[in-house]
Amino acid sequence: MDKPLVGIVMGSDSDLPVMRGAADILDELGVPWEIIISSAHRAPEKTADYARRAAGRGLVAIIAGAGGAAHLAGVIAGHTALPVIGVPIASGALNGVDALYATVQMPSGIPVATVAINGAKNAGILAAQIVGTGSPEVREKIIAYKEKMARQVGEKSARLQE
Amino acid sequence: MDKPLVGIVMGSDSDLPVMRGAADILDELGVPWEIIISSAHRAPEKTADYARRAAGRGLVAIIAGAGGAAHLAGVIAGHTALPVIGVPIASGALNGVDALYATVQMPSGIPVATVAINGAKNAGILAAQIVGTGSPEVREKIIAYKEKMARQVGEKSARLQE
Amino acid sequence: MDKPLVGIVMGSDSDLPVMRGAADILDELGVPWEIIISSAHRAPEKTADYARRAAGRGLVAIIAGAGGAAHLAGVIAGHTALPVIGVPIASGALNGVDALYATVQMPSGIPVATVAINGAKNAGILAAQIVGTGSPEVREKIIAYKEKMARQVGEKSARLQE
Amino acid sequence: MDKPLVGIVMGSDSDLPVMRGAADILDELGVPWEIIISSAHRAPEKTADYARRAAGRGLVAIIAGAGGAAHLAGVIAGHTALPVIGVPIASGALNGVDALYATVQMPSGIPVATVAINGAKNAGILAAQIVGTGSPEVREKIIAYKEKMARQVGEKSARLQE
Amino acid sequence: MDKPLVGIVMGSDSDLPVMRGAADILDELGVPWEIIISSAHRAPEKTADYARRAAGRGLVAIIAGAGGAAHLAGVIAGHTALPVIGVPIASGALNGVDALYATVQMPSGIPVATVAINGAKNAGILAAQIVGTGSPEVREKIIAYKEKMARQVGEKSARLQE
Amino acid sequence: MDKPLVGIVMGSDSDLPVMRGAADILDELGVPWEIIISSAHRAPEKTADYARRAAGRGLVAIIAGAGGAAHLAGVIAGHTALPVIGVPIASGALNGVDALYATVQMPSGIPVATVAINGAKNAGILAAQIVGTGSPEVREKIIAYKEKMARQVGEKSARLQE
Amino acid sequence: MDKPLVGIVMGSDSDLPVMRGAADILDELGVPWEIIISSAHRAPEKTADYARRAAGRGLVAIIAGAGGAAHLAGVIAGHTALPVIGVPIASGALNGVDALYATVQMPSGIPVATVAINGAKNAGILAAQIVGTGSPEVREKIIAYKEKMARQVGEKSARLQE
Amino acid sequence: MDKPLVGIVMGSDSDLPVMRGAADILDELGVPWEIIISSAHRAPEKTADYARRAAGRGLVAIIAGAGGAAHLAGVIAGHTALPVIGVPIASGALNGVDALYATVQMPSGIPVATVAINGAKNAGILAAQIVGTGSPEVREKIIAYKEKMARQVGEKSARLQE
Repeated sequence: MDKPLVGIVMGSDSDLPVMRGAADILDELGVPWEIIISSAHRAPEKTADYARRAAGRGLVAIIAGAGGAAHLAGVIAGHTALPVIGVPIASGALNGVDALYATVQMPSGIPVATVAINGAKNAGILAAQIVGTGSPEVREKIIAYKEKMARQVGEKSARLQE
Repeated sequence: MDKPLVGIVMGSDSDLPVMRGAADILDELGVPWEIIISSAHRAPEKTADYARRAAGRGLVAIIAGAGGAAHLAGVIAGHTALPVIGVPIASGALNGVDALYATVQMPSGIPVATVAINGAKNAGILAAQIVGTGSPEVREKIIAYKEKMARQVGEKSARLQE
Repeated sequence: MDKPLVGIVMGSDSDLPVMRGAADILDELGVPWEIIISSAHRAPEKTADYARRAAGRGLVAIIAGAGGAAHLAGVIAGHTALPVIGVPIASGALNGVDALYATVQMPSGIPVATVAINGAKNAGILAAQIVGTGSPEVREKIIAYKEKMARQVGEKSARLQE
Repeated sequence: MDKPLVGIVMGSDSDLPVMRGAADILDELGVPWEIIISSAHRAPEKTADYARRAAGRGLVAIIAGAGGAAHLAGVIAGHTALPVIGVPIASGALNGVDALYATVQMPSGIPVATVAINGAKNAGILAAQIVGTGSPEVREKIIAYKEKMARQVGEKSARLQE
Repeated sequence: MDKPLVGIVMGSDSDLPVMRGAADILDELGVPWEIIISSAHRAPEKTADYARRAAGRGLVAIIAGAGGAAHLAGVIAGHTALPVIGVPIASGALNGVDALYATVQMPSGIPVATVAINGAKNAGILAAQIVGTGSPEVREKIIAYKEKMARQVGEKSARLQE
Repeated sequence: MDKPLVGIVMGSDSDLPVMRGAADILDELGVPWEIIISSAHRAPEKTADYARRAAGRGLVAIIAGAGGAAHLAGVIAGHTALPVIGVPIASGALNGVDALYATVQMPSGIPVATVAINGAKNAGILAAQIVGTGSPEVREKIIAYKEKMARQVGEKSARLQE
Repeated sequence: MDKPLVGIVMGSDSDLPVMRGAADILDELGVPWEIIISSAHRAPEKTADYARRAAGRGLVAIIAGAGGAAHLAGVIAGHTALPVIGVPIASGALNGVDALYATVQMPSGIPVATVAINGAKNAGILAAQIVGTGSPEVREKIIAYKEKMARQVGEKSARLQE
Repeated sequence: MDKPLVGIVMGSDSDLPVMRGAADILDELGVPWEIIISSAHRAPEKTADYARRAAGRGLVAIIAGAGGAAHLAGVIAGHTALPVIGVPIASGALNGVDALYATVQMPSGIPVATVAINGAKNAGILAAQIVGTGSPEVREKIIAYKEKMARQVGEKSARLQE
């Protein structure tokens, strides 16, 4: 397998069903990835260490998903100059609004590129788009993916008329 | 000055007008404190270091105030076994709801004792109550403070009748 | 059984499945507790009486959980100088946002240390942290608990790679 | 002055500019009132005592206004069988949503008749409507007041055409 | 059966499972009631007519429950000088927040006494409290009901200790 | 002046600064209008009467603006088969969210075509679009207006480059 | 079948169960319609093309339903002078609040006539009301439909008394 | 000037005071940019054309800022395979929550990398991080910028102790 270009981090193994969406689309778009569980609160050293070493290990972007007071993406962004993509995960009583606010409302100086609540698939596409800024091959796959989507809309609409 | 028992941490010097409320009431209740600026995102090492050394330095509780995606209290709580009190600070377009959710909705295992948005004074009282569990002198001052509040309500009500 | 150090109060027996989380973790951390049902509205005298006598009976902290217009923690805090921890409970149409606001937004002078919606386990840990400020034994257990959490994150992450 | 039929209670003298609206309309509708400052948290005994003695002193309804985690109306309702009207007051970062939820979302068994945020005038009218169920004179004044409102709408609309 | 003192109005027969709670508690408190379906939008004439004739028919209070853009209570309040109690009903995607705002945020001059979302039982108790301002018998039943609630809290708490 | 095709109704003269936006754009698009003040709650008969007679008087659409528990558009829609356009007006503590929910969340059977909070100008354009379905002249003016907007965007962008 | 007067567009075939409500009521009110799937994001050219050609093809109004960041109705409105009706669809963690805001809060110049979340039936009635401004036959059917609704309310209320 | 690598697009010239923050930080980080005004609704052709030609013209990322029903970033993302960064702008009654939801909650397949409300500066940093994945020079500047931030936090904290 190729050396991973995208790191996928999640706060808990209960986030795996959502975060797997990022890995699947990265596979489809031909971008190698790795996945780990870490936690901004329960394993802060491990998280900081992972973020600090990511660029040196050849990663191009990091995707981080967490629920509730979702600090994972922001904490990682504090420790790396790589683009960090945050996936707010719906869990508990506030159903992801807490995770969205805790991910997107980052202070000036430390951005997190936030996608929709549970939007791990889009996080994967965004990571691929970032990889694609330096890889014509990946960009071609993204363009083909977009064309496929447009075609599918047309086909579904046609089926509706039958 | 006595060795500080309570550490007050804030994410930015713009938070000082709010966070000073904690220091003032701690003075009134006879609890020595210290104050620093740190940031979960802009100065993550400093923040982790402060939290890890707090208990050893004799602190009994830490108060942390931040706005927006307020990760400061949670990150500190990840690095210490001391009780951590979070003050969500109103700033920006969401006016503190983001900071409230990012402070209070902590994952299982790592609590942050959250007070009202901009509630730094109450954070100070809460820290004093924690100190008071081991200090009859501080507890007496809290009791006297509560009696003064009740008296003031009565006086204000009486003045209204005039 | 040891004399309880933490009192757990809930507004209704329907809150028991959530609030049991506080008792369980207190057991794990070696802090004796007691549990009662009371209500700020349906049994106001009983509630006030419990709060007023808590310090004298040797309690070090009180955990109060309620849903809806959750006044229980605030009312107890009005009657005691002990630290009071509030657990907003999700119930009814607003799913705990009402309880969160009614618990955390306390007026100046009377703090309630609020944890996440349904966060009874964290309330228990926070109470143990308060007890731990005066008990090296309890603090050791909290430190061990935190180390166990970090270890478990590492183990889960390792399992993911298999 | 006639013996008061409606008690107006507020949590703080800073609520007076809003709560005065209740007193003014009660004057206009011919219903005698009294006004006090009390607090569910800072003066809990005084509040409970006032509520318990209200019916015996001849009051017919109580209006209670408070901001933030507004427990005042609910706590009063816990201590009396009289109808209690709650006025959520906008204050602080949440601008009254907290007070609204903390006032209206009362548990089963203890209602608070909630009006709009800062709606003290409507609280006064509602108290007068309750008094009016036993006083034809007051009801007549309410009917006249409603007719005046309808007339004023017509006059303003006519002025717009000029 | 006695002549009804309280009218219960609901916007749709789908609201019956909620609104029945008002009728049941009125029965328990000895207050005769009647129930109709009407709609501010689908049957506006019928609604206006019912409200205008309510006082003349001997009603003392009207309870109105509706969901979504819940105009029913407000429209009724526009046509009568009786106290009108609004029950916001949770339905559809906003789960009752829309009904709460549409019921409680009435303009100056036309109050609606709003209870919790789906709080029909409390609406019934509030109506009984209003009837009770003129009926010692009903007030006694309310006082007994409150004492029963306090007793039940004590019993449940005692059972918890076993 | 031509016979009005669009009726503009507002709940209070304080809404005039917002609602004037509808009249101004209707002038620009060549659609005659009339404006009145009425109120679903303070002048319910006048409101119902206006709505019932609107179609017979030659109106093609009605624009209704109100704040708070904004029932005006919905009540009018209950009394006419014409398209009714609702403008939620920001006022009071909830800043228009209440008016938006109370306007847009209409029950099945009685639509209100809702525009943005304070969006009176867009309400006017929408009314003109409805008139335009039967008037080529008005439709031409709308098309020209859209072209002008696109041109202005281009000019502003060009100015930015200078 | 008659040439369609109303175009129903939806962002995804998963929206069909909701959007079918528009088609059904248009059938009942005698207004011919057509339905297509398109997407502001996945098939932007198709969407723009459909909107630009709608008026020329004889459509009188367009209904567009989408969930999440629901841009469909707004994008269509950018490309046509016809009235565009937006149906926010509840989907995902925010349950339609996102779609409501993304549909209704359109900038000045480009209105979208927004109905309730999932309110496709009302979108159909609104489209029929627009068609009805030029068709006495359709308007008669709407009036009959409203009378039927009022009658049904009366019948349901009568059944309740049995 | 160097050929721009980042395109900054905003919906209206009133957004310029916010969006300038992106340009300023891009200057500081040595990334050439261009800025235009366009609108998803008022100038849809221009917007689509700009997006479709962006990659061919050598742009690496596009930043789009808009308020209200903020469709600009999403519409651009529909027309390009480049990474698109969305800045929700606070404007009008909902103060940016509408723009946040309309920007971040994109459907599966078309991500928008969303930053905080009014977070244009962070959008610029994120764009630089993306450019930096292919430019060691830019990445060095980002690392230096992060070090400067950490240093400034330390200096401010030191000043506080004086």
